[in-house]
Formats: sequence, structure tokens, C-alpha cells
Amino acid sequence: MDIEEFRKQGYAAIDRICDYYATLEERPVVSQVEPGYLRKLLPESVPEEGEPMEQIAQSFQDDILPGITHWQHPSFFAYFPSNATFESMLGEMYATCVNNPGFNWTCSPAATELEGVVMDWAAKMLGLQEDFLHTSGKGGGVMQTTASDSALTAVVAARSRYQRAHPDISLDKLVVYTTTQTHSLGAKAALVLGLSIRALPVEADDQYALRGEVFKAAVEEDKLKGRHPFILIATVGTTSSGAVDRLDEIVDVGKDYPDIWIHVDAAWAGVALACPEFREQAMLEHINAGAHSFCTNFHKWGLTHFDASTLWVRNRALLTTALDITPEFLRTKAADTGLVIDYRNWHLALGRRFRSLKLWFVLRAYGLSGFQAHIRKGVAQAQLFASLIQQSPYLQIFTPPSLSLVVFRLRDSDEAANRVFFGHLADRADVYLTHTEMNGKFCVRFAVGGVHTEEKHIRHAFEVVEEVAKRTIEERGLGVSLEAEAEGRTDN
Amino acid sequence: MDIEEFRKQGYAAIDRICDYYATLEERPVVSQVEPGYLRKLLPESVPEEGEPMEQIAQSFQDDILPGITHWQHPSFFAYFPSNATFESMLGEMYATCVNNPGFNWTCSPAATELEGVVMDWAAKMLGLQEDFLHTSGKGGGVMQTTASDSALTAVVAARSRYQRAHPDISLDKLVVYTTTQTHSLGAKAALVLGLSIRALPVEADDQYALRGEVFKAAVEEDKLKGRHPFILIATVGTTSSGAVDRLDEIVDVGKDYPDIWIHVDAAWAGVALACPEFREQAMLEHINAGAHSFCTNFHKWGLTHFDASTLWVRNRALLTTALDITPEFLRTKAADTGLVIDYRNWHLALGRRFRSLKLWFVLRAYGLSGFQAHIRKGVAQAQLFASLIQQSPYLQIFTPPSLSLVVFRLRDSDEAANRVFFGHLADRADVYLTHTEMNGKFCVRFAVGGVHTEEKHIRHAFEVVEEVAKRTIEERGLGVSLEAEAEGRTDN
Repeated sequence: MDIEEFRKQGYAAIDRICDYYATLEERPVVSQVEPGYLRKLLPESVPEEGEPMEQIAQSFQDDILPGITHWQHPSFFAYFPSNATFESMLGEMYATCVNNPGFNWTCSPAATELEGVVMDWAAKMLGLQEDFLHTSGKGGGVMQTTASDSALTAVVAARSRYQRAHPDISLDKLVVYTTTQTHSLGAKAALVLGLSIRALPVEADDQYALRGEVFKAAVEEDKLKGRHPFILIATVGTTSSGAVDRLDEIVDVGKDYPDIWIHVDAAWAGVALACPEFREQAMLEHINAGAHSFCTNFHKWGLTHFDASTLWVRNRALLTTALDITPEFLRTKAADTGLVIDYRNWHLALGRRFRSLKLWFVLRAYGLSGFQAHIRKGVAQAQLFASLIQQSPYLQIFTPPSLSLVVFRLRDSDEAANRVFFGHLADRADVYLTHTEMNGKFCVRFAVGGVHTEEKHIRHAFEVVEEVAKRTIEERGLGVSLEAEAEGRTDN
Repeated sequence: MDIEEFRKQGYAAIDRICDYYATLEERPVVSQVEPGYLRKLLPESVPEEGEPMEQIAQSFQDDILPGITHWQHPSFFAYFPSNATFESMLGEMYATCVNNPGFNWTCSPAATELEGVVMDWAAKMLGLQEDFLHTSGKGGGVMQTTASDSALTAVVAARSRYQRAHPDISLDKLVVYTTTQTHSLGAKAALVLGLSIRALPVEADDQYALRGEVFKAAVEEDKLKGRHPFILIATVGTTSSGAVDRLDEIVDVGKDYPDIWIHVDAAWAGVALACPEFREQAMLEHINAGAHSFCTNFHKWGLTHFDASTLWVRNRALLTTALDITPEFLRTKAADTGLVIDYRNWHLALGRRFRSLKLWFVLRAYGLSGFQAHIRKGVAQAQLFASLIQQSPYLQIFTPPSLSLVVFRLRDSDEAANRVFFGHLADRADVYLTHTEMNGKFCVRFAVGGVHTEEKHIRHAFEVVEEVAKRTIEERGLGVSLEAEAEGRTDN
């Protein structure tokens, strides 16, 4: 394809994307295809001769789109949002155009430098203190693929630091701490590294947040048993209920155990720190006081499409000491003289995408005020939904709403009834919610924050939820076997 | 930004990308900026109010582009190519548009299914046998970020498998095998996992390829010492010289040590398997006979922009057993019944980009014949360059050219002279080559494979190289102090 053909096909692609967004609301949120649908539609091998782009783009429309669950749909309330914005897409187009795998400064100076600048911008926007900025000369930020990637990187750095301080301790004795409410990224990091994990208990009375005394008791117990906890993955805004671990207490306890790294995973909630009014509940003061590393994902609620996981550390040397390998072919004059950052030593891989460009586009195009307005809109919409739930005779809030997340269930009901209720909800194509289970309680999650979600979508979702709740309860009163209904659909 | 504004800005972005490619050849290959250039140009914080997109796009042009080293430039011969194509960019635009973080089938059916289909297409195109295909019901492929990511994933799966077979062996006793010529991904994987590594020696007489007997001797020696090698990372096409480890011998030796996983890293060279005439030298028969996992990067020489690292395994259960964590909130009906793949259990993170779309666009748009033509063009251009080197009175080939990689140095010269020679070359802005060192020998690498590289660019690069070689040798004859010249620039 030559340049003029690309111009033509590029315009056509832009038009198709415009059509997609113009018709998004008419589409079912959840794809209605059956497993294996696509293989039946496509040939078995690469075609011998190339096909015209119109044909491929049409196949995207005809074959791929029906199999897409529309995360950008205004009625997508499942998992957490995965914002895509036009501004972010435009940034990505330029990044793709230059396609710089910025593993060191020399091969991609702008990609490296922009990442440093943008990470400082974002850190300031979120209220992180100077320590976490590149300009501090000691800390700094790096863009990773996912919060899992960021957490894994933090665990590796923490393990390396612990092992340097305790060179005789076998890997088999090391323990990663999470809580029972920590995202699976904690368990995955331990699994990947082959290390033990201990999920500390949390209580409903504490709103599922980890308390300092539980942390302390676990450390003391493990030390007596000859086990070596070396990192705690604390969460600001858990996936299940938006719980915020008690970093005030945890950081305080941590002072007695300076070898234990405190990683704060705020994958979803962290971007809300852009608004000063949410900083206290998100424990910003204590993050600044005691976190060794902090992660949030701009690719969730942060207006930037996947992937854009931002990770900051207070001491960059702890990352680069753990991750630096510089073979001859990667040595450069700029790095040897210590003038520049080589980001390959800040993450697990070598090559990396030019991720900062899209975030830079978003931050400039929205400005601080636009970014804050987006966050505030999500919180207000969640509050509206929560207030509707509270007024319903069929439904009840399960945990206090956290930012833009509302967790609820049937009023005065048992687990079986709630599973049936969710089964019915999951059959709907016009709204998409997901479920969770906390200390044995089955609940439904309503996660707000979509770019295109308006008040009317919140109200519609509530109507659907209440109607399904009413029906579930009526069926129950009519003696419908809940167990039979629940079978086969409870996990959808 | 609303839809109509995006249409306008999208067209403008396409136009700017067209302009970039139209003027690419006039730009210096290597960015001429100094470390820290960008921070001086940009404000210190996110702007309070949003900026118009024209202004941001113009800033990309004015501030970012001068700091870009142009990997798409036809005279970029450094590292390995990092192909971007218009076809790939168009695929990416659609992927960004739907922005599906396909961690399980349910949340993104098309993203999951297309990856399965495209990985089978690619496997067949490269000649991998049925075992590696999803249709085998046992093996399959997954798209990772990088070859480092793929290798790390393979090491984790291999370690998990080894530990299940030998549950009493401490992590401290495990050893990862690479060779002294293996890409840094091997050392990085071991570093990340906190495991020991042993780099097996290779000889110039073997063209820097690992021999079976060296592998066998190392295993026997380690076993005697109570160490447990559990994976060998073999390479088809090393970074330094394109060496191909002797998989014929290695696979044979491996039969005696079935607990040792053989991962074949063909990050750069693997895509050449699309052409039948290169399969013998790339040891396809032996990959098929004995590799547990195989990786190549379509984002290098494979016409697809970053990231598109393809990893195949012969036994998918070895990946998913090592990496599966399914908390309640990720359980789905489709996965519980075993009907579908949930790709989060095939890699280290949870979320993942819709990477298969761009590769699907490329494979359909080029077709097998177009893909092969691109590979053959690169090999032919490298052969042309090698033949020019061979005819030069100043230069000599260091190792036999491997596919599209030529390694050379000054004729009959010492290391110091070669370092000065490379220092002069590195000062050029119109061509970009990198260096390496093999068993103490300093060499220059010439890596062909760019989409826009034509014969004239090869001839121009040779003229530059020969002119610089001549000058270096003349300076030497004139008694210029090589050591003084070399200082400060040898590592550029």
C-alpha cells in the first residue's frame, strides 16, 4: 500500500470508527455469539495472494464486530471501565506511525523523555509528592502494560532488595502479602515468581479493608515460623467493593519492618486522586508517607485506552538494580555516562511501546479541569445509582459506595436468590454488570465511569436491575426452585 | 471531542502520517537531540484547561519528531528492523476503537477467537507442525508483548512443570541455560525470577552456535553438583551474528533429559520460516521434532508494528497449569465448561491488548506471497551488502551472513581500530548501524529488513561504510592515536 492509498484507506477507517461510535448505543452491550463462532467464518490459512483493504475492513465489520462486547457502550457497567477516547486514539496513531521500541534513550530519545515528563505531570496531577517524580533525581515513573505487570515489577524489585539485605535466605522462605480482597494480580505475581503468598484476612466490619494490627500479627507470626514476608500489596479501591486498605495504620506498622516493601495498587481508583476531594478517602497522605511504589491504570477510568498502567517508585535505583542487564549490543554513550534513563531497566521486557504519547494527548486535550470533570461525573452517576438502590423495596446496598463503584444485592435475601437474580441480569443484552463474592456473600457490582455514559443510562440500568430483582423475588414467592434456576448460569 | 470533530482530526492525523512517510528519507535516521532536550520544551504540569487538538498535533511535529530516531527510515540498519506498515496501522486503529482488554473469552469473544485463528494461520505459514496449532486440541499460540515476555512465560511454565515433577527441590537449585550469545532476555528472565543462569560457551568454529555435546556436558556436570537445569533457551538467529543453535543435536540430547524444556527463541529470524528455502538453515525440522515452545516476533521483520510477539507451545496445559488463577469475579459459564480459551492464563498479566487484529490485517493484505516477497527482499539486500563488503579492500565479513544480517569489520585489524571505525560510523546521521562483540571480537552489524529499504539504500550504506573504513585505516597509517580517538565514543 503506498502513501496515497493509505490516505484513502485511513480516511475510510476514520469514517468507520465514527460510524461505530454513532451506532454504539444501538448495539447489544454483550456480544451474543457462541463459542467458536469466528473460526467457522474465516478460512483456515493465510490467503495465497493479498486481499484489498476494503474487503478486510468489511470483514472486521461483518465478522469481528458481532463478537465484540462493547466496553465503550454507555451501558457497560461490568468489571471496571476501560476508557477509550478519540484523543487517546489520535495519540496512538502517531505512536504507531513512528513505531519506536524505546528500550533505551539512544534508539528513541523522545519516547523516553516524553515518558519521564508525562509521568511527572501525572504524578503531580494525582498529588504524589516530589519523591516520586523524576525531577527528584531519586524516584520516578514508568508506564507498564497492566497493574499485574506493575505489581510483578514491584515484587521483583522488593525481592531483590530483600535478598541483598539477607543474602542467606532461600527463596522458599519468602512470602508475598496480599489480602483476601486483593486483585488476582497478587496471587499471579507470587505464582509467576514461584513464591509463597499469604492472603491476610479482612472483615466486613472494616469494609473489607486491611487493618494495621492484622498486618503486624501476620509478620510476627511468620517471623517466628522462619518465613520472610518482604512485600505487602495494599489496595486503594479493591475490585470487589472498592475497599481502601488502612494505609494510615499499615504505613505506621511498616516503620517497624523497613525491609517490607509496601506496594499500593490503585489500578482503578488511583486516577480519582486528580480531584482533591477524593484524596482523603484514597489515603493519599499515607501513600506519600510510606508507599515504596504506587500504581494506577489510566487505561481504566483515566480516559486513555489500553495499555497505560503507571507505576511510580520512590527510589528508582531499587528498580534498576533489580532489572538492569546491559549486554554489549545495548551499551550506549548516553547511558554509560548516566545522563539518561534507559527504560528497559525499569520493566521486565526489553522492547516497549511508545505509551506516553497517548496519555500526553489525553492530558493536554482534557486539561486538569476536563480530567477532573470526567472523574466527578462517574462518582455522581454512581451516587445516583446508589440512591436509587436505597429507595428500592427489592434491593439493598451491600457496602458503602466507593467512588464510582456500587455493590448491592437483593434485600433480605440468601445467596441462592442472589445467584438467580444475577443469572437473570446476565441474560440481558442491554446492560452489562458483573458479580463478586465477599466473605461468602454473593453480590452484584455496578461500575460506572464510561466516557459516553449519561444519567439516562444510569436510570435505565436501575430500571432493568429493579425489574429483574422484582421478578426474582416474585418467582421465589411462587416457589420456583432457585437451585434449579441457578444451575448452569451462576457463573456467567 | 465529538464524532464529527474526531472525523476532522482523524483525517488530519492521517494526512500528517502521510507527510511523515513522504519526507522520511530526507530526515536524519538518528535523532540529533541532546539528553534532556524535551523537558526544556514542555510545561511542567498538565495544563489547567484543555488544548485544541491542532496544537497538540503540531507539538508532536515540532517537539517530538526531532527526538525520534526513525526506525522506519530506509537507511535504518541498526539492532533489528521494527517494521511498521500501513496495513498494520489500519488494523491497530480498529483495535483501539473497540479497546477490548480480552482477558477472558466472555468479555471479548472476537479478540480471543481471532487470536486463536491468526496464531494457527501464522503457525501454518511458518511450517510449524500440527502439535503447535489450536486445532490440535493440545497446543496453541498466544500473542505476547515481546520475546522477553515470551521467554519469561516459557521459563515460568518450565519451572512449574519441573517443580511438579520434583516437589522437594528448592528454587535455589534451579538453573536456566542459555548460551553466551543468547539475547539478554535469557539473563533477564533468570534475574526476574531470582534463578541461577548458566551461559553455555559457543565457539567461533561453530559459527557461535551451541553444540549438543556442550549442552550434555553441562547437564551432567550440574547434576553432579546438585544443580537442576530445567530449561534451555536456544536461539535461531542470535542478535549478534544470526547464529542458529544446533537444534539437531540439542533435541537429540534433550531426549535423555525429558525434564528440560527447550524454548526456541527465533525473535528475529523466525518469520523467515514463511519461505520454504530458509527452513533447513533455521532448523525447522528440529523445532518441530523437539521444541517445547517457539517464539518469533512479527514486530521485527514481520511487517507488523510493535507489539506482536508470537509464542507457541506444544502442550497448552503446561502454560495454563502454571498461570491459571481464577477468582470468583473472573469466573464465567463459558470457561467453566471448558468451551473456550481464557488468554489471561496464557500470559503473565490479566488484561491484554487486541493484538491479533493488526497481524490479521497484515497477513490478509499481504497474503503469503507478499509476506514471502518481503522476507526474500531483505535476504537479497543483505546478500548484496555482503558481496560488496567482500569486494572491498578495507573490510571483511566476520561471520557468514545469516538471512538479512551481515556482520563485518575492518580487514586485518585489531579491536581498537574497529572501535574507532564504529565510532566514526556512529557519527553519521544518514545511516544507522550498531555494533557487537563476540568472544572478544568487536564487529559492526548491518541488519536489513525495512519495509522502505531499496537497493539504492544498501548501496549508499556500503559507500558510507567503505568511506569511513578507508578514512579509519588512513588515520591509522598516519599514526593517529586510536586509543585517544576511541575514548568516549566507543560505546555509542
